[in-house]
Amino acid sequence: MEKKITIAIDAMGGDNSPNKIIEGLSLFLKKNIQNDDFLINLHGDKKKIEIELNKFSISNKLIKIIHSSTEVSDDETPLTALKNSKNTSMWNCINSQLEGDADISLSAGNTGVLLVISRMILKMMSQLSKPALAGLWPNKNGMNVVLDLGANIECNDENLVEFAELGSALYKSLYPDDKPLVSLLNVGSEEIKGTEILKKAYKKLNNLSNENNFIFKGYIEGNKIMDGGANVIVTDGFTGNIALKTAEGTAKFITDNLKKTLTENILTKISLIFSYFALKKFKNRLDPRKYNGAIFLGLNGPVVKSHGGTDAKGFYHSIDLCYKIVKGKLLVQIKNNLNHLKNDKL
Amino acid sequence: MEKKITIAIDAMGGDNSPNKIIEGLSLFLKKNIQNDDFLINLHGDKKKIEIELNKFSISNKLIKIIHSSTEVSDDETPLTALKNSKNTSMWNCINSQLEGDADISLSAGNTGVLLVISRMILKMMSQLSKPALAGLWPNKNGMNVVLDLGANIECNDENLVEFAELGSALYKSLYPDDKPLVSLLNVGSEEIKGTEILKKAYKKLNNLSNENNFIFKGYIEGNKIMDGGANVIVTDGFTGNIALKTAEGTAKFITDNLKKTLTENILTKISLIFSYFALKKFKNRLDPRKYNGAIFLGLNGPVVKSHGGTDAKGFYHSIDLCYKIVKGKLLVQIKNNLNHLKNDKL
Repeated sequence: MEKKITIAIDAMGGDNSPNKIIEGLSLFLKKNIQNDDFLINLHGDKKKIEIELNKFSISNKLIKIIHSSTEVSDDETPLTALKNSKNTSMWNCINSQLEGDADISLSAGNTGVLLVISRMILKMMSQLSKPALAGLWPNKNGMNVVLDLGANIECNDENLVEFAELGSALYKSLYPDDKPLVSLLNVGSEEIKGTEILKKAYKKLNNLSNENNFIFKGYIEGNKIMDGGANVIVTDGFTGNIALKTAEGTAKFITDNLKKTLTENILTKISLIFSYFALKKFKNRLDPRKYNGAIFLGLNGPVVKSHGGTDAKGFYHSIDLCYKIVKGKLLVQIKNNLNHLKNDKL
Repeated sequence: MEKKITIAIDAMGGDNSPNKIIEGLSLFLKKNIQNDDFLINLHGDKKKIEIELNKFSISNKLIKIIHSSTEVSDDETPLTALKNSKNTSMWNCINSQLEGDADISLSAGNTGVLLVISRMILKMMSQLSKPALAGLWPNKNGMNVVLDLGANIECNDENLVEFAELGSALYKSLYPDDKPLVSLLNVGSEEIKGTEILKKAYKKLNNLSNENNFIFKGYIEGNKIMDGGANVIVTDGFTGNIALKTAEGTAKFITDNLKKTLTENILTKISLIFSYFALKKFKNRLDPRKYNGAIFLGLNGPVVKSHGGTDAKGFYHSIDLCYKIVKGKLLVQIKNNLNHLKNDKL
């Protein structure tokens, strides 16, 4: 019998927790009623968690509660986190990986603190110089992995090459039937464009490009990210964070405008009767909750950060993401890719 | 009698020229039939231009053709431009400002070449260290000026402060009844976030903030660009270029999806009968042609770059932009703002 996938969840992180955490979990359990290859460890206030489990009628032998009497506050800063966060639900959730009790950790709590204590507890893989925060981003043909989204605001060419290997490994763990196609985000697609750091990374990635690890597709411009020509988009954390948030802001601006337009008078309201189901599908395709979950890569164990403000459905998607990542053997994929990096002459 | 606003247009730049240039001009003339405070100088192949003027029945005493026998090719690189572009329609168009024959130049031709020869001919204002490319970007309440969009891929704090002054001057020339509200694009809104360069620029802008030049609103994240809390968004050319193109790509992805959704079956097609006029307004509000025209700021004369691929309507908007910029006395506004910069202790 294969070892079960164990997901450690910080039940106390984010807005409206543990309620939305447990409601999200109930959605996950419903969708995976046929599967018994996983276990869920819930870290947090035992009493509060039990109340919510009862509310959603969850009495499942796949669930375990591990009590923590404190939690990380939203106001905590990364600077004081190490001192103040010990034995919080977030800390215990991550620490359980170190003790072999879980394969992955998930929290919707304070991002800065999560990054700091994850790195402290799980430590960086020795072959790497920086960890990265990766996210999912839809494209015309399916999904992109984009990294770094803000863990490192300044990066050199070596970091970018490592991000390409990490991102490709994540892509392979999530989409095992697809090839990772790596592109470097830049202000033009010609080889002469961009900073010296990008030019150096371009050369190295070109040399590393192969069928087993990733195919390097060169530079990509911001307006092509969603075209599907590449599916692993590599950039520094400053640019990645701004690109992602700008895309979010643009999407919101357009859909808010659309909503206003389609409810502005009696005629448009009638039109909604006819387009209701189609627009529902459209909305569903663009639903940001489907992409909820940023993956902290490069540590000796994967950590997933859910949006603090998401709801139960969003949190369900981040549990699902954790399940797929472990099922796709992310850590094995990363080790393979880092061996490739080490063996190759750069 | 006040001196007329003279706009020099490179009639040969961009796809499908001079046809779209002249069609765009005919739209401009129709909209400004009541105004006689402007003159248009068309630079390019006299015969070709005359054919198009006849096609659109333009025989206007406000139009003058200045013949150029050559034009800048799309394949020309900035490196060889200085040697090869002399006496092209683009060169003559910009050069006419130097000779006092025009107040502003407009071209839809090769961007790299336009930036290089504009800078060479018009020279940078002596108080500045770098010029910047600024664009218009819609927000919830109206319009943003965003800069730099790619003229400088690496910038220091001094450059960013200059961009704030240039962008505010542009904003005041376009929207004289509004106050410029400057924000620095960053990965977080707290003062401790971002690179050292941003932190230094933040302090300087905070000191410069005043009612006469601009109000500094601090850092802004990518998802807030369109919220209307700021209207002059300052960033380096690398980040600005990627943010703008990512927004363009996201808008296209969503509107393509929406189009597909609303034509996917007979019901949705019926819905369009009821929502037709509302959706037309929605489309019009987001039409990228309305924001066509990047403004090259910091030279001793303004130069506007139209998208090469735009159509007549897009080109009309860039002519209109030129007209408004000169009417709003951009150069006077810039000089005022640069005096402020010089007089203030940074």
